[in-house]
Amino acid sequence: MAAAQNQSYWVSIEADVETYLKKAIPIRSPESVFEPMHHLTFAAPRTTAPALCVAACELVGGDRSRAMAAASAVHLMHAAAYIHEHLPLTDRPRPKPTVHHKYNPNIELLTGDGIIPFGLELLARSMDLAQNNQDKILRVIIEITRATGSQGVQEKEGELHACGAACGAILGGGDEEEIEKLRNFGLYAGMLRGLLGKNNSGIMEDKIEKLKALALKELESFQGKRTELIASLVEPSLRAAQK
Amino acid sequence: MAAAQNQSYWVSIEADVETYLKKAIPIRSPESVFEPMHHLTFAAPRTTAPALCVAACELVGGDRSRAMAAASAVHLMHAAAYIHEHLPLTDRPRPKPTVHHKYNPNIELLTGDGIIPFGLELLARSMDLAQNNQDKILRVIIEITRATGSQGVQEKEGELHACGAACGAILGGGDEEEIEKLRNFGLYAGMLRGLLGKNNSGIMEDKIEKLKALALKELESFQGKRTELIASLVEPSLRAAQK
Repeated sequence: MAAAQNQSYWVSIEADVETYLKKAIPIRSPESVFEPMHHLTFAAPRTTAPALCVAACELVGGDRSRAMAAASAVHLMHAAAYIHEHLPLTDRPRPKPTVHHKYNPNIELLTGDGIIPFGLELLARSMDLAQNNQDKILRVIIEITRATGSQGVQEKEGELHACGAACGAILGGGDEEEIEKLRNFGLYAGMLRGLLGKNNSGIMEDKIEKLKALALKELESFQGKRTELIASLVEPSLRAAQK
Repeated sequence: MAAAQNQSYWVSIEADVETYLKKAIPIRSPESVFEPMHHLTFAAPRTTAPALCVAACELVGGDRSRAMAAASAVHLMHAAAYIHEHLPLTDRPRPKPTVHHKYNPNIELLTGDGIIPFGLELLARSMDLAQNNQDKILRVIIEITRATGSQGVQEKEGELHACGAACGAILGGGDEEEIEKLRNFGLYAGMLRGLLGKNNSGIMEDKIEKLKALALKELESFQGKRTELIASLVEPSLRAAQK
């Protein structure tokens, strides 16, 4: 019963992020740019980091809508990294074939290059003079650029989730302690969900249990029904970000 | 005499941007990330777009320091584009050899990917609660991400200069009319300087004269000594951004 409620919570967030992204990246003119951008954005496998961004925003009392641009930017950074990781370079073959190579490498290179600033543009445009949220948006831009910039845009589930959770907490109006607790929760939860994708051996299960305990400890000071919802991200049985 | 003054104006701006960038990208830990980032940032050929950003800021009455982060970000976007344009992909040879290929393609790919968010991080960090300039910074982030995002990070001298000039005018406190005039000036001046890099034939000279006239027309409503300084960017005899 609780499991089903938790499940539907994540499903509803993921549907909202998907809708937001589809609206943000329509296939418009010039089609040579936006068609691959649209296709490659949605062809990249989903992670739970964008949904966690929204859940963290709601946990600290913010309205879901405040985190939509940031959640989308988190997905776009991941999508850009995924595209470039699967780019064939002269000194490496194309990493294991994936289903969606409709384009030649040059288009994939440029599309990944375009998706990074596009995600940050979405975020910058979500400033709202009435809400006076510019400082929060700038802080979130720093979070996302720092997570992707100096490391190159590399795929690290833990860091992507930590960044997503911190961004959601910032935008939802969390205090510094809440932001840092949710950042830590995201780090552990992201590492855990990254492991779930892999072949499950006995040693892995042990590691998963440890990460789960570490993650849940970060949530101890949070109150209310939403705490249970966000905590369910570390339940290995939760099916999230499937596509 | 005036020519020498103009020359030294651009030289002084370029030196300041160089100093700012060197401080912003020290070779720090992790060296595997920052060493290539530092090297490739300075190995990319210079354009006059960052200097124009600073000149536009000063023309509308802003202090030079206000435009430094934006000018650096403009160079970083250009450097990222340059690195990726010279990346060898399996469907194309390495475009004409350049001197600075110290790294393998995978490092060049990741470094370019990292430089884009890093440039935007610099910009976001330049927010100043005391100056209450967050809305200007967000607007400049939108300018830069729009110029690079939906087009992929492509090399277009005109657009890069237009973007740089608009950003400088915004940060310097220019009004909407000044911002648009300087954007147009940047577009023409950038196209002109792009042509200067090419082989100069008779037809080209004609084109350069036309661009110069269009550019100067945009400056007609500006007053004061600084107008002459910024106007000198369209003098084919001006040696700027040489490296």
